[in-house]
Amino acid sequence: MSNISHARVSSNAPYSEGVLNRSDDATIRSALARIPTTAALDLLKEQDPCQLVLSNVKTLFPLEGSIAGRARTLRFLPTRVDYRKAPGEPPNFRLLDATQPGDFLIFDAQGWPRGSVLGDMLALRAKINGAVGVATDGVMRDLVGLEGVGLPVFATSTFPVPSAPTLVAWEADVPVQCGGALVVPGDWILADRDGVIVIPERWVNDVIDGFEIFTKEEQFCRALLLDGLSLHQAYPMPPAIRPLFERYLSDGRLPSEAEVLKANGGH
Amino acid sequence: MSNISHARVSSNAPYSEGVLNRSDDATIRSALARIPTTAALDLLKEQDPCQLVLSNVKTLFPLEGSIAGRARTLRFLPTRVDYRKAPGEPPNFRLLDATQPGDFLIFDAQGWPRGSVLGDMLALRAKINGAVGVATDGVMRDLVGLEGVGLPVFATSTFPVPSAPTLVAWEADVPVQCGGALVVPGDWILADRDGVIVIPERWVNDVIDGFEIFTKEEQFCRALLLDGLSLHQAYPMPPAIRPLFERYLSDGRLPSEAEVLKANGGH
Amino acid sequence: MSNISHARVSSNAPYSEGVLNRSDDATIRSALARIPTTAALDLLKEQDPCQLVLSNVKTLFPLEGSIAGRARTLRFLPTRVDYRKAPGEPPNFRLLDATQPGDFLIFDAQGWPRGSVLGDMLALRAKINGAVGVATDGVMRDLVGLEGVGLPVFATSTFPVPSAPTLVAWEADVPVQCGGALVVPGDWILADRDGVIVIPERWVNDVIDGFEIFTKEEQFCRALLLDGLSLHQAYPMPPAIRPLFERYLSDGRLPSEAEVLKANGGH
Amino acid sequence: MSNISHARVSSNAPYSEGVLNRSDDATIRSALARIPTTAALDLLKEQDPCQLVLSNVKTLFPLEGSIAGRARTLRFLPTRVDYRKAPGEPPNFRLLDATQPGDFLIFDAQGWPRGSVLGDMLALRAKINGAVGVATDGVMRDLVGLEGVGLPVFATSTFPVPSAPTLVAWEADVPVQCGGALVVPGDWILADRDGVIVIPERWVNDVIDGFEIFTKEEQFCRALLLDGLSLHQAYPMPPAIRPLFERYLSDGRLPSEAEVLKANGGH
Amino acid sequence: MSNISHARVSSNAPYSEGVLNRSDDATIRSALARIPTTAALDLLKEQDPCQLVLSNVKTLFPLEGSIAGRARTLRFLPTRVDYRKAPGEPPNFRLLDATQPGDFLIFDAQGWPRGSVLGDMLALRAKINGAVGVATDGVMRDLVGLEGVGLPVFATSTFPVPSAPTLVAWEADVPVQCGGALVVPGDWILADRDGVIVIPERWVNDVIDGFEIFTKEEQFCRALLLDGLSLHQAYPMPPAIRPLFERYLSDGRLPSEAEVLKANGGH
Amino acid sequence: MSNISHARVSSNAPYSEGVLNRSDDATIRSALARIPTTAALDLLKEQDPCQLVLSNVKTLFPLEGSIAGRARTLRFLPTRVDYRKAPGEPPNFRLLDATQPGDFLIFDAQGWPRGSVLGDMLALRAKINGAVGVATDGVMRDLVGLEGVGLPVFATSTFPVPSAPTLVAWEADVPVQCGGALVVPGDWILADRDGVIVIPERWVNDVIDGFEIFTKEEQFCRALLLDGLSLHQAYPMPPAIRPLFERYLSDGRLPSEAEVLKANGGH
Repeated sequence: MSNISHARVSSNAPYSEGVLNRSDDATIRSALARIPTTAALDLLKEQDPCQLVLSNVKTLFPLEGSIAGRARTLRFLPTRVDYRKAPGEPPNFRLLDATQPGDFLIFDAQGWPRGSVLGDMLALRAKINGAVGVATDGVMRDLVGLEGVGLPVFATSTFPVPSAPTLVAWEADVPVQCGGALVVPGDWILADRDGVIVIPERWVNDVIDGFEIFTKEEQFCRALLLDGLSLHQAYPMPPAIRPLFERYLSDGRLPSEAEVLKANGGH
Repeated sequence: MSNISHARVSSNAPYSEGVLNRSDDATIRSALARIPTTAALDLLKEQDPCQLVLSNVKTLFPLEGSIAGRARTLRFLPTRVDYRKAPGEPPNFRLLDATQPGDFLIFDAQGWPRGSVLGDMLALRAKINGAVGVATDGVMRDLVGLEGVGLPVFATSTFPVPSAPTLVAWEADVPVQCGGALVVPGDWILADRDGVIVIPERWVNDVIDGFEIFTKEEQFCRALLLDGLSLHQAYPMPPAIRPLFERYLSDGRLPSEAEVLKANGGH
Repeated sequence: MSNISHARVSSNAPYSEGVLNRSDDATIRSALARIPTTAALDLLKEQDPCQLVLSNVKTLFPLEGSIAGRARTLRFLPTRVDYRKAPGEPPNFRLLDATQPGDFLIFDAQGWPRGSVLGDMLALRAKINGAVGVATDGVMRDLVGLEGVGLPVFATSTFPVPSAPTLVAWEADVPVQCGGALVVPGDWILADRDGVIVIPERWVNDVIDGFEIFTKEEQFCRALLLDGLSLHQAYPMPPAIRPLFERYLSDGRLPSEAEVLKANGGH
Repeated sequence: MSNISHARVSSNAPYSEGVLNRSDDATIRSALARIPTTAALDLLKEQDPCQLVLSNVKTLFPLEGSIAGRARTLRFLPTRVDYRKAPGEPPNFRLLDATQPGDFLIFDAQGWPRGSVLGDMLALRAKINGAVGVATDGVMRDLVGLEGVGLPVFATSTFPVPSAPTLVAWEADVPVQCGGALVVPGDWILADRDGVIVIPERWVNDVIDGFEIFTKEEQFCRALLLDGLSLHQAYPMPPAIRPLFERYLSDGRLPSEAEVLKANGGH
Repeated sequence: MSNISHARVSSNAPYSEGVLNRSDDATIRSALARIPTTAALDLLKEQDPCQLVLSNVKTLFPLEGSIAGRARTLRFLPTRVDYRKAPGEPPNFRLLDATQPGDFLIFDAQGWPRGSVLGDMLALRAKINGAVGVATDGVMRDLVGLEGVGLPVFATSTFPVPSAPTLVAWEADVPVQCGGALVVPGDWILADRDGVIVIPERWVNDVIDGFEIFTKEEQFCRALLLDGLSLHQAYPMPPAIRPLFERYLSDGRLPSEAEVLKANGGH
Repeated sequence: MSNISHARVSSNAPYSEGVLNRSDDATIRSALARIPTTAALDLLKEQDPCQLVLSNVKTLFPLEGSIAGRARTLRFLPTRVDYRKAPGEPPNFRLLDATQPGDFLIFDAQGWPRGSVLGDMLALRAKINGAVGVATDGVMRDLVGLEGVGLPVFATSTFPVPSAPTLVAWEADVPVQCGGALVVPGDWILADRDGVIVIPERWVNDVIDGFEIFTKEEQFCRALLLDGLSLHQAYPMPPAIRPLFERYLSDGRLPSEAEVLKANGGH
């Protein structure tokens, strides 16, 4: 769809373009929005989950539940007297003008704490265009204004001076790092009170599909703990009681304490 | 005025004394209290605004709006066995007893995180004397007590042991650093949720005078964005639409989208 | 009592075992729960109070008042391919299953920020067993889940990946460091909004016994400050007005401003 | 020349290509190699010299004099399970194979301390191809091997594990940051014992041309100091003695102490 | 042998005791002493080598080649007024008195930079007893004295005050962390100019056995690079030229450039 | 002597002036120059020696032995657009012009790493005036030039841009912090390879007087260790063998191993 191609604001970033089927995105977004980041990472535990966390990037405002979107990226570089702007149109303005519903904007500020990469006006433009969130490993400014906009924003802290004297928005829609994690345009981003993570496209369905059984297992184990059973007996679920869990899955019936103890071999 | 001279608690700090006209201070304070720190720094963008920020110094409690006052300063140095106290009367007690309405106390703790420079009793004395706030690049203690006092306080964190084993209040009303910024007695201090900044006396009227038009410009641009115009068309305000802004200033009339596009040359 | 001995999950930690009289613990806990950490440290000011603070360990949720309990400890070490688990049963599960009412769990994570040492299921087990709190100089995860459990928890931050890839729970009920402080099993732990501190057994009664007079003294001085007296006259209490304080202790009568000035020698 | 165009290993980096006249580079290199980094930065003092320093990037071996070359760049990003390699041929190998005489390789490792971006084999290939140096804001490994190769190398430290588990070489010959400075392919790099700096093409002749007079001025001032004159009289050169310096430039004659004092007005 | 058992200075550390055959240690030590840490880690690349590095622990003096020994460990904890010493005899003195030839002492100082864990007298005792080295993630003191002793020592830095006011040696011969790596008594420690690493017992023969072929492969590839071949052709060794390497192993004959190009398919 | 009073470059610093007897300084300097910093701190172990260390301040060049001098101080503050210079004459130039033989210059740069507070020209002036060293908790520049001057210099690192854009020399000869230690003009400064420490005037004779016996004790214990005695028997010197040490002091005779064992009670 031509809409999408003009959405890419730099020509050297063919990432994901071909494979994205934007019509499914809304479905994925709402499925992910039910999943805590911790659950998603547990479901990705074979994929080196530490590499999927945007470290030290936290919500600036109280946040309910999870937010999910497709990564759109922006790369900042240090300013130099002869490069107060990047060549061409400023990519941050271009990216925000080209933002589409469901985009989650990821700003690679290289951890720089002394130049804000987002204030209320740019946040407003992103919000109007349908962005679901903005995250950076740098800082933002104008907490009152940003809160007024109402777009979920994630950063390491705040600093009241804009990025102009120290950082320059260099290019958009290219692979970046953010908080020590690789983010490629088209990746899925999931954020909640615990932080911001990246879910590569190839695993997003594993996460969504695995979440139901994951939740059931947590419910099952929590119920046993609430019955007074020990971690040894109940969590992480010992293989010996898995048949009782299968029964719970089929008929919703929780085992008695005696059943659990017996299954675990009486100790 | 004798009132002022006894307020200075060390004889070697003639900063600002001569030029201060305390009778105007209340007017300036209330004017500044309408201005966010981010706006003030934008209005000071030619003055190297990064140098005006007390880095990492943040409000310890929820805060509404802005707070402004004249800087009164206190310089801490590391304790040594032979200097558990500074020569003479403790300058922190003297400063707090000599605090006057409208003073904003700035404690240079050199970023030291393991000795609190303010607890509830000293905060209470400052409050009673009319201080508008206290900021330090060190730490404070007794959140419950400080919250009870109700004086706005700004610090890098908290630590429950007082400064005595590690820091000594050395002198008051002298130039200091705080959070990496130079603060000279008599400077204006402005603080809000985004942080704490210093506004040198010579620029305070520029900030106050510039704020009205600055606000109008933000309102104008925000309205255009809310109309769906792009950053390219609307913000930062392109020179081509400034006549439309002038019209808005004179009669409050916002331009239509078509007017903006036309003014910007149709692209 | 056999209950206690099975509570100790490693044989090499005889700390305090012999001297603990668990029947008094509830009394001590409720006495400590009235004391702010700052007051306790002031009462311990001869005992090098900086060494008693678990630095950078803060409550993850809003907290009312103080919480006190006996230290139970857990020591984490870095993971290695050949030591993904410690020898024997996992000590974190054993410790949580052996937790007893009034225990305050202290997890030594050596400040590691990238592996969570507590999530909601383990917190639930601790809560059911009567733990009063968990503190670590590492990180925790699942803020929503932890908040749901309702157990007070203290950490340096959050990280959404569990400790397994990077940390291994190595042994329980041994002396550890946490936040740069030594914590020995059986020590008292006291926590509030200002942080978490350790009170060695031998001084806990000093703290409890000293708190009443400490509070009276603070009330007395605060009243004088509220009367408009200077720090020089009122706080820290000058020796010259101590007789007035003694009178206050005996009959609750606060001195007049004139009485204070006279006692202080008229200046 | 076709040689140059194949030297660029990624198509999206047209920086400097058009304007470089490689035939002059050897001349510039040898001119720069006489200039200390401190002198170059003094000559660039109007260009915000702090932004030209690759902070914390230091020579790993004893170094004589200065080294200069054209920047060739390499950008690393964090590894992810699904991106153990960048798309296409590994750009670090391609860059090193395409290195040309006079190239100064700049590796943007984003300050990562736990994965080496250069060992002895790659250094050897760079050396054979004529590289004059390699600098990174990350780390290198194999000090013995690197010293054997003899190529000047600059890094923040060493770490004995290669980058593969944590960093991926992503693209070459694009603008990067290194040590907090912007480096664009084709920039001049100058390095000595004091560190590594970038000199944008447009100012390189200013530096070279200004160095002679700069050196003379330093010699002149040093001679006066060695004569026992004060900084007040001799350095930084007071305007009043500039005629004496002009005389020195023309005939090599240093002024007497009396001449200097007289020129400075006798004080 | 009773000698060994009294060498273990705490009863709760059965690590390795049973399996060590000290008579082989000298052979292993001299085999390891030929291997650079970087080569050992390359040979352990399937074992998560980053976890085997004692980060930031560097030699304090110029060092030739590699040093290898069995880990003996010492764990420091923070001092507290009531624990200026650990219970029982000071474990650091006991450990040093019980040091045996070939021991490599590892001091877990938890990264503490302000209390020295080794000075010249203790180093001398270790040296006399046959220690091959001492490494800590803390600091040491008395560079002149330590250099005089001549024992290789590795630390993060120096600090001239001993550990007594801030750290207490708590126990010896137990598992510890050092520089973020797990070290278990009996592990092999290998150190050179690049740093200090731990080689678990189970892999030490893999390292020793693999080193010869590893070295041959490096020599082979280096020779090809010196012939002017590209990394693409020569390093890391492409599978297509492995037969040429096998030939080199059997008869020492290096391939010609043409042979390599042909084997690699002519490109 | 009028010479001294004009040496003080700011009027608000009466520290030590009255009590200094400069004629004794040369004697003290040469006595201190025989004492390592570690020995001096051991002799000051009752005076909280950690507070006497200028942390992270290290010699920039190879250094033999110890250097001692009287502290002259300089305090830097952050630059601000309206305070590019301090009021009055630049205090760094004034201090260096007023430097006297035996002065040890201490520059409080508040740990700032990005602006050099000393280059070769200023170092030359200090050297000519007889300074014995310069130490800062900031950075210096021009290693080649500084090495040429030959004045011992101590800093945290180097940075090639001068302080002017970021720091301003504010006042001289006032109490400062440096590396977290309080330094008052007139204090003694002692520096060697291990670092830089401050010795308050009142204790300098204790250090000098105590050093001889301290050295004897170290020699005695070292000799016992070299004889193969354990730390338990020999170091720190057990009270039971002190009579043997007294004998050694009187006649230089070292005890036999048997004598030591017997004195220590045979164990």
